[in-house]
Amino acid sequence: MTRWVYGFGGGDNDGRADMKNLLGGKGANLAEMASIGLPVPPGFTITTEVCTAYYDNNEKYPDDLAAQVEAGLAKIEAAVGRTFGDATNPLLVSVRSGARVSMPGMMDTVLNLGLNDLTVEGLAKAAKDDRFAWDSYRRFIQMYGSVVLDVDHHQFEEIIEFAKLEAGVTEDTGLSAADWRRVVAAYKDLVAKETGKPFPSDPKEQLWGAIGAVFGSWMNPRAIIYRRLHDIPAAWGTAVNVQAMVFGNMGDDCATGVCFTRDPSTGENMFYGEYLVNAQGEDVVAGIRTPQPLSNQAAHPGEISLQTAMPEAYAELLAVREKLEKHYLDMQDIEFTVQSHKLFMLQTRNGKRTAAASLRMAVEMANEGLIDRSEAVKRVNPSSLDQLLHPMLDPKAPRKALAKGLPASPGAACGIVVFNADEAESRALKGEAVILVRVETSPEDIHGMHAARGILTTRGGMTSHAAVVARGMGRPCVAGCGGISVDYGAQTLSSAGQTVCAGETITLDGATGEVFIGAVPMIEPAMSGDFGTLMSWADTFRRMGVRANAETPLDADTARKFGAEGIGLCRTEHMFFDPERIGAVRQMIMASTETDRREALARLLPFQREDFRKLFVIMAGLPVTIRLLDPPLHEFLPHSESEMAEVAQALGVDMETIRRRGAELAEANPMLGHRGCRLGVSFPEIYEMQARAIFEGALAVAKETGNAPHPEIMIPLIATKKELEITRAQVEGIAKAVFSETGSSIEYSVGTMIELPRAAMLADQIAEVADFFSFGTNDLTQTVFGLSRDDAGKFLPLYVEQGILAKDPFISIDVEGVGEMVRIAAEKGRATKRGLKLGICGEHGGDPASIAFCEQVGLDYVSCSPYRVPVARLAAAQAALGAGGDRTA
Amino acid sequence: MTRWVYGFGGGDNDGRADMKNLLGGKGANLAEMASIGLPVPPGFTITTEVCTAYYDNNEKYPDDLAAQVEAGLAKIEAAVGRTFGDATNPLLVSVRSGARVSMPGMMDTVLNLGLNDLTVEGLAKAAKDDRFAWDSYRRFIQMYGSVVLDVDHHQFEEIIEFAKLEAGVTEDTGLSAADWRRVVAAYKDLVAKETGKPFPSDPKEQLWGAIGAVFGSWMNPRAIIYRRLHDIPAAWGTAVNVQAMVFGNMGDDCATGVCFTRDPSTGENMFYGEYLVNAQGEDVVAGIRTPQPLSNQAAHPGEISLQTAMPEAYAELLAVREKLEKHYLDMQDIEFTVQSHKLFMLQTRNGKRTAAASLRMAVEMANEGLIDRSEAVKRVNPSSLDQLLHPMLDPKAPRKALAKGLPASPGAACGIVVFNADEAESRALKGEAVILVRVETSPEDIHGMHAARGILTTRGGMTSHAAVVARGMGRPCVAGCGGISVDYGAQTLSSAGQTVCAGETITLDGATGEVFIGAVPMIEPAMSGDFGTLMSWADTFRRMGVRANAETPLDADTARKFGAEGIGLCRTEHMFFDPERIGAVRQMIMASTETDRREALARLLPFQREDFRKLFVIMAGLPVTIRLLDPPLHEFLPHSESEMAEVAQALGVDMETIRRRGAELAEANPMLGHRGCRLGVSFPEIYEMQARAIFEGALAVAKETGNAPHPEIMIPLIATKKELEITRAQVEGIAKAVFSETGSSIEYSVGTMIELPRAAMLADQIAEVADFFSFGTNDLTQTVFGLSRDDAGKFLPLYVEQGILAKDPFISIDVEGVGEMVRIAAEKGRATKRGLKLGICGEHGGDPASIAFCEQVGLDYVSCSPYRVPVARLAAAQAALGAGGDRTA
Repeated sequence: MTRWVYGFGGGDNDGRADMKNLLGGKGANLAEMASIGLPVPPGFTITTEVCTAYYDNNEKYPDDLAAQVEAGLAKIEAAVGRTFGDATNPLLVSVRSGARVSMPGMMDTVLNLGLNDLTVEGLAKAAKDDRFAWDSYRRFIQMYGSVVLDVDHHQFEEIIEFAKLEAGVTEDTGLSAADWRRVVAAYKDLVAKETGKPFPSDPKEQLWGAIGAVFGSWMNPRAIIYRRLHDIPAAWGTAVNVQAMVFGNMGDDCATGVCFTRDPSTGENMFYGEYLVNAQGEDVVAGIRTPQPLSNQAAHPGEISLQTAMPEAYAELLAVREKLEKHYLDMQDIEFTVQSHKLFMLQTRNGKRTAAASLRMAVEMANEGLIDRSEAVKRVNPSSLDQLLHPMLDPKAPRKALAKGLPASPGAACGIVVFNADEAESRALKGEAVILVRVETSPEDIHGMHAARGILTTRGGMTSHAAVVARGMGRPCVAGCGGISVDYGAQTLSSAGQTVCAGETITLDGATGEVFIGAVPMIEPAMSGDFGTLMSWADTFRRMGVRANAETPLDADTARKFGAEGIGLCRTEHMFFDPERIGAVRQMIMASTETDRREALARLLPFQREDFRKLFVIMAGLPVTIRLLDPPLHEFLPHSESEMAEVAQALGVDMETIRRRGAELAEANPMLGHRGCRLGVSFPEIYEMQARAIFEGALAVAKETGNAPHPEIMIPLIATKKELEITRAQVEGIAKAVFSETGSSIEYSVGTMIELPRAAMLADQIAEVADFFSFGTNDLTQTVFGLSRDDAGKFLPLYVEQGILAKDPFISIDVEGVGEMVRIAAEKGRATKRGLKLGICGEHGGDPASIAFCEQVGLDYVSCSPYRVPVARLAAAQAALGAGGDRTA
Repeated sequence: MTRWVYGFGGGDNDGRADMKNLLGGKGANLAEMASIGLPVPPGFTITTEVCTAYYDNNEKYPDDLAAQVEAGLAKIEAAVGRTFGDATNPLLVSVRSGARVSMPGMMDTVLNLGLNDLTVEGLAKAAKDDRFAWDSYRRFIQMYGSVVLDVDHHQFEEIIEFAKLEAGVTEDTGLSAADWRRVVAAYKDLVAKETGKPFPSDPKEQLWGAIGAVFGSWMNPRAIIYRRLHDIPAAWGTAVNVQAMVFGNMGDDCATGVCFTRDPSTGENMFYGEYLVNAQGEDVVAGIRTPQPLSNQAAHPGEISLQTAMPEAYAELLAVREKLEKHYLDMQDIEFTVQSHKLFMLQTRNGKRTAAASLRMAVEMANEGLIDRSEAVKRVNPSSLDQLLHPMLDPKAPRKALAKGLPASPGAACGIVVFNADEAESRALKGEAVILVRVETSPEDIHGMHAARGILTTRGGMTSHAAVVARGMGRPCVAGCGGISVDYGAQTLSSAGQTVCAGETITLDGATGEVFIGAVPMIEPAMSGDFGTLMSWADTFRRMGVRANAETPLDADTARKFGAEGIGLCRTEHMFFDPERIGAVRQMIMASTETDRREALARLLPFQREDFRKLFVIMAGLPVTIRLLDPPLHEFLPHSESEMAEVAQALGVDMETIRRRGAELAEANPMLGHRGCRLGVSFPEIYEMQARAIFEGALAVAKETGNAPHPEIMIPLIATKKELEITRAQVEGIAKAVFSETGSSIEYSVGTMIELPRAAMLADQIAEVADFFSFGTNDLTQTVFGLSRDDAGKFLPLYVEQGILAKDPFISIDVEGVGEMVRIAAEKGRATKRGLKLGICGEHGGDPASIAFCEQVGLDYVSCSPYRVPVARLAAAQAALGAGGDRTA
């Protein structure tokens, strides 16, 4: 015989906390609490398997369910000494749904079930309170009527309003027992009229109606949509919990409350919660009366704590708090009721908490010996660390919303609006706080982005240029804010009728994507010692290395400060936009002959050498992965007349030639164009210059410091083994030349990005000529999906909203598609070369779920923007500990 | 003991034609000819394994090679009754290389080896001809000196020039025996001076020198490059053939000649060739004397045929011809020498031929019973059929080259230059032949392309818009002709200093990519009955179906005429550019609300319905695969002010709105943008309109003709199963609605393009909701390689030239990468749905090598442009017969 019903609290506890799949979260925890001796009102759980069987079997219950429910009910009756439907001493029950995970959209709760015209009198007598009994009865009809019988709840409320009008009172509390009796009569008329049948008076019929409503709600449209969005299989089903009622509203020796075993805001180890005398849970929510604190310590003058009002119940609750934390080893969120001075536990679950609280609790619990360090490391959601590293808007401060875009780079920023990078820089130099507002940004805007406090763009997604660069710099950024239109000519931005001019102040919340008019007060981040402690613990557990994507000495310094163990991606092209050198870069790309190109490259060499030298000094002794030139040359084109004139003069050609060359370089799909190693193959002199700069820079640092850097030279956009052979030979040729010129040498390696599907498929061949692979999952996502990250903003939000994609694949790696490519390439690469070093340097390198995936496929390291390094360290530790992806904070 | 040396022609024939891998092509065929009783001068072949062993063993020969060579030489001496190095009756030999495949860059031939100051006198006596002997001697030193001893051949020629000057003659024939004797002396001095050693007089030393030179040449740079480009493994090695000399230049009873067993130009079954009396092979090549015909029948007045001059030798040659064809079952290319009236065969191999000849020979040989029909089908290179279906330039006509681009669509065309589509159309309507010249074409140019005789673009590759559309229309096209610059303003095109104005005539050769100034006379294609015969044979062998990519009734008609068995790709967007409807299309894309969009779509519906109705009538009873809208909406944007004004008026908005909407629609990488099913998901009303047009059109045809079409509705750019679920539901909803409105229904299916790597990787999931897959290998190539076909022209030619890619992957499928994706998707799809229909509709569907791949992975059909249908039919038959990819014609 299949067991469909599991009892709890009546002496027999059939369930346990780890039976959530069968009993749902609520049912499993009720059984667990009862089994450790906590005072739980007796009840039983109808399993999730009944739900599944019900839907598999054409909405019919298993044959033996009714008998098991009867038996469960009999046990409750025995335990509490009351009888369901009994006129003198009636048992009342609550019926609640309870799935594996909390799921909005489903039927929630029916209280006081078992009341009818007979039992209400019995309740009145038992409680010695007519008003309480009739109020309970009308509450029952109201809940049952709306959630089980589907009568519009407004109609019930109207009846109460009318009763108050008639009685001449304004509050429910003003209504007498007789008033409630009339309300009950009116409720029953309403139900009969709306449903065509009288309100069910048989408690058994009521019970099966409520059970059926819970199972029925599993398939209502809201629940289905929620499941689709959250990838919850319909086959999981929901459980139903039937439990003896206890009443917090049966007099002044009764109460109800909620509490947390520690402070969920700060994490402080103090008992935190509130209660109301003579109330039911819904009264706390209604907010008409002010809840009171639990302890005297927390009580302000005029407040009466539970400690004072009901000292025995409070003492019992304190013991429960300790027992629960010792048992669950985590901060608990508790619901309790006191009936006639007796404490009852109605719910416990792990409590939600802020990032700061999560961190503090994890460290303190480990120090208290409650949990071990690995558990502490698993407890903190890595993504939440962002909150700790950036200023945030004061949640209490008033604000004036303007628009909402994508939360592209966390943190809050406030400043005056400027519309171009040069102005951003010059104003910032004068000490002004500026927000750079652009339709989209390009590499030419980098100095302005750096100078700005925050960046706002109206186009582009989470991995648009603005977003990537802002995250790298740790600048708050709201991207793709399509609701705002920018008029560069008029120097204004506007949204839904509101206009902001250049020079006026706005505030960005990079964590939510919101934009506000004016200044919103902020809270500065407070980095506690707990942060450093947890990070150091995390480092002892993780297997993967964590590097940073960085080009500038500033970024490299930041990365080191956050614990990066080297550079995983130095994008050399970012070094090309400095005003000192962009001229030579343009001269190079405009050159129509190799000679001209070499001349321009010779001008660039000393700059690049110095760039690398500085990075190598900061990263002394650590690996530095340098990607040779990747973007198509037209990214560096001069745009303005004066810029073009400058280049024309430098090259000794006319403007027409410059314009023609610009047109020649234009591409229909630059992402798929003449870039990456294709440049190196077409114009060997470019990679040769870069290789020379790297080797000369590295040798200089080795000489200066005696601590030679290990350059890992990375060739982008490889699709064939031959491309890597050719470009590798260029690098090796230069290495040989430089080593022979200088009479000294260093260790270096040459590897490739795996960022094209073809490279992944042929990784076994490519590995023959590669010392390492670095997965460029940004571009790999673009090619695997056929999805331009610059253009995806038009439909990707819709795709996520409709559940076509679970997440934006540029934020969290698409494990099924892109991830499969990575897995194939990793396996093929290592089949050729057992110890092949594997890393990831796309934006996914800073995303916890993606980092968990990297651990699964055995990558050696992840590389991410400097401000994500702590996130990656923690996520890598969790991945190594098998904690899986993102946890809910 | 390993056998290193294989004899032939001396009675023992150790080799056979099928031993090419061991003996090389030449050696194997010499042995084969000798073994079937043909008169082959005796000799031996040193195997390719010697070459391999030589390089594996630090350039040393196997120990027992010398003894085997000695033995081989002894057999030759015995067979011809002369002795190597003998002063009175010396044996002379030729030494030739011979790899598996003919390979330029290697040492070719040394003749007359064995001559020295002693043996030359013996030769003179034996031949009774001093001059012949000394001429032979100097020829030997000259060949040996240049190819074995590496002395610059110009220096030998200078000595002859000087000798002629001294002798006061202008031709070599004017030099006497004494003159040649002096030349020999001078040659020996030259060699001694250049090499520091006297010219080797020991015949054995000469022989080993020549053998070493052959093996050495296997690793010379030219050979290495050739092998790399043609993917020939170095491990194959070359053989060396040593053969007794016979002389065609020992008097007037001697001759040398080359012939084909059938006419290589027309395929006619007649003996075709030429010969020279008293000459060596090199004299025929030198072209100083005019070769004479073989038969009296072919002789013009004044010519003396071999039949007349040497009737016995001729009769013997006729017998050889018959014997060879019967033996090799193919047309042979023969070299022969007659020495003192005796015929000797020096070479036979399958002869190269024109496409027309190939076709005729295959059909006639099958009809003669020489080969069977499957062999006939295998004999014709499918790609060569293009030559038969299009006019070609008269090879003899003079021409003035302008530039050379890509051979984008075969055939020749001649006409006046026009620079825009409208003018092309209006001039064509007046009966003028025009060539449309554009930097690149877009869908808006289609009417002009159709009106033009040929299309020339200066940008874009083999699968650029111009190339694809031109091939579809059967219009000759030269694409990506970067050497030409177009000035629309001045209405000129120019290249390397030559300028052509609008209205002047140019000629295109779409088969070679050449562009000529002025008109070049053409030869019209003559489609013989043989073509139809071979096609019908091919159809009996092929397993795969052949469909066409077609949208217009004209294309569909053409496709049917060429034997297409349905439409594999109807690109509905091509129907959007007609002037009657582009207005409604623009109204649709400019609409900012769904209502406006639906209104515009309602205007389009009758047009689309009629489009489909016409196609269905032509394809009655056949499958028609219709791809719903694929390109991004901005492809349809109005460009000119007047077009924009028109749209503004239709929508009742101002110009500014139109401009803003245009800017909003712009994309950074349209290829990876908001297109394909992403449009269907964002704007369901578009696919709904198209589905309605399809169903209404199909039902109309079913009613009209009683022969219901089977529409296969294809959703493009699917990356996830959910996209297909959503768009499939749109189509099914409309089907249900239309069937219910009309009270009748038809069979239809809904499938998807597999054109993104993600779709290939997840084909098992996608197959759950797809009735068929069609591989869109154009886009799949773009995404797998990260390569935009519009931009690839800048580096793809270099890639092919450098051997990074064997072929342009847009022309012939990249089997390793893109093909692997196709294979994975086919397997995964069929794992989910055993009978899943699989086809290909990229440009590769018309490429023989790609078709062979499609056969291997088990696709059900290929679809290609109408003019490629015969190519595909033949290639599919060859693939089914296991003939592999492209053959050399």
